[in-house]
Amino acid sequence: MVDDISPCEPDRHCRAAGKGPTMRLANIRVDGRTRAARADGDTLVVLEDELTDLLRRPGWQDLALTSNGARVPVAGASFAPLVTTPDKIICAGLNYKAHIAETGRPTPEHPFFFSKFPAALIGAHDELRLPTVSEQTDWEVELTVVIGEPVRDVDESGARAAIAGYTIMNDVTVRDWQHHGPTWLAGKTFEATTPLGPYLVTPDEFPPGEIDLELTCSVNGERMQKSRTSDLLFGVPVLISYMSRVLTLLPGDVIATGTPSGIGGRMTPPRFLEPGDVLTTAIPGIGELQNVCR
Amino acid sequence: MVDDISPCEPDRHCRAAGKGPTMRLANIRVDGRTRAARADGDTLVVLEDELTDLLRRPGWQDLALTSNGARVPVAGASFAPLVTTPDKIICAGLNYKAHIAETGRPTPEHPFFFSKFPAALIGAHDELRLPTVSEQTDWEVELTVVIGEPVRDVDESGARAAIAGYTIMNDVTVRDWQHHGPTWLAGKTFEATTPLGPYLVTPDEFPPGEIDLELTCSVNGERMQKSRTSDLLFGVPVLISYMSRVLTLLPGDVIATGTPSGIGGRMTPPRFLEPGDVLTTAIPGIGELQNVCR
Repeated sequence: MVDDISPCEPDRHCRAAGKGPTMRLANIRVDGRTRAARADGDTLVVLEDELTDLLRRPGWQDLALTSNGARVPVAGASFAPLVTTPDKIICAGLNYKAHIAETGRPTPEHPFFFSKFPAALIGAHDELRLPTVSEQTDWEVELTVVIGEPVRDVDESGARAAIAGYTIMNDVTVRDWQHHGPTWLAGKTFEATTPLGPYLVTPDEFPPGEIDLELTCSVNGERMQKSRTSDLLFGVPVLISYMSRVLTLLPGDVIATGTPSGIGGRMTPPRFLEPGDVLTTAIPGIGELQNVCR
Repeated sequence: MVDDISPCEPDRHCRAAGKGPTMRLANIRVDGRTRAARADGDTLVVLEDELTDLLRRPGWQDLALTSNGARVPVAGASFAPLVTTPDKIICAGLNYKAHIAETGRPTPEHPFFFSKFPAALIGAHDELRLPTVSEQTDWEVELTVVIGEPVRDVDESGARAAIAGYTIMNDVTVRDWQHHGPTWLAGKTFEATTPLGPYLVTPDEFPPGEIDLELTCSVNGERMQKSRTSDLLFGVPVLISYMSRVLTLLPGDVIATGTPSGIGGRMTPPRFLEPGDVLTTAIPGIGELQNVCR
């Protein structure tokens, strides 16, 4: 089946390692519905199901690889949130060594998490809705994992096997509301603030071993965050394994792995998003989110 | 339509204020499905939809009041979690004045919240699954609200109108995992730990104004928590209004209002749940949860 995959654009769409079924999947709006799509060069092959639903089907990899549908050009496609109905959105806090130093907090002994609700999610090019109740909306680029099979009580090896693929989230955060209390939830889940996408990139597209990717965040072209996932305190398999001790992770579940240093709230003076700002969030090898603030 | 309602048992099933359509709804397991049911004396009238789905139907009150189906006795009914597929489970932290004093934390200026995932929920008499990774599973009785219509950016008056009804949650918490980090999530959402139910009681069953109910929690018959909701720092309408500034609250959404003093982790020495313990969580006027720990 691997032979059926068309080669990806080498410059920006993938860097296939050539060792297994590799795919880049999106979730796009077509004719009033949201449907998964498989990237094939500069086109997207539209699949039958929405991506969250697709991931819930046993054997989704084969379905996604072999199904054929209408083709739409990547340029001009309307990207929905990568998954629209995840059972869980789990976000790690303070998980980059340099970011921990920036906040002045002690190094955590365990990973820790908060959540967002699905209504926070927007697509890769959607408008980012700045809350009217705050002027402290901040950015946080994050490598993000989507789960591809149910897992409970797994070690790191089992955790690796549960990864459907990698994507990008900007864990946009309303700083004052985040700190209305210790548990962060309200400031993390404002409606239509959190871009997720543009692609789900299967693990086989990356070299074996712990994933090491650059991640960046810019506002109006000015670089605010730049780091590598090798600076993660707790790697992806540890995060998945930890949460699998708590409850069953399900296909479509989203795990954001934390943000590196460079958030606006820690600048002197603090800097936050304003109407008209263009927020660009990128991980080369996965793609780029570009969202205009309104 | 009010005339169609059969009188409730005066001793334990309701105390109708006689001023509007009052109902007690449950979610029960019947023939392998979960379906809403309307309490009528010592029987339950089985409705067509699961309760979360029912609440999402416009005019659900009329449907729930007037639909008729099979009747099953309350005694022996298998109660599912009151809602099984809520979009959001939002839980207030530190919201009873005496409990705040017990934790030694300063009085919050704003309400604050964390979340649970639906997989944490169990029914009113289901087994409570103690995590194997901890010996610090603790109890937290909470008055809990279920949302009955979509609301966004509402004041307290709008918040009151959005309440479908009141129920009971025991916000069972794994203390050591709660404190692996500041944001509490993992310790709050262990699978099959959190009873929710047994009834959704419509607001008209209670006197007008701020709700004032006794709430208690016992382990093996020994009283651990006893308070009244009049000790709440932020009342139900404030909690709903606050979260409606963040995102749209939807029918079926669950908002737990926080727990009073008397948690096991603050006892000297600390006391936690053990296999075989019977956890009883009650709010007279709503009902009682009784869960055996395994």
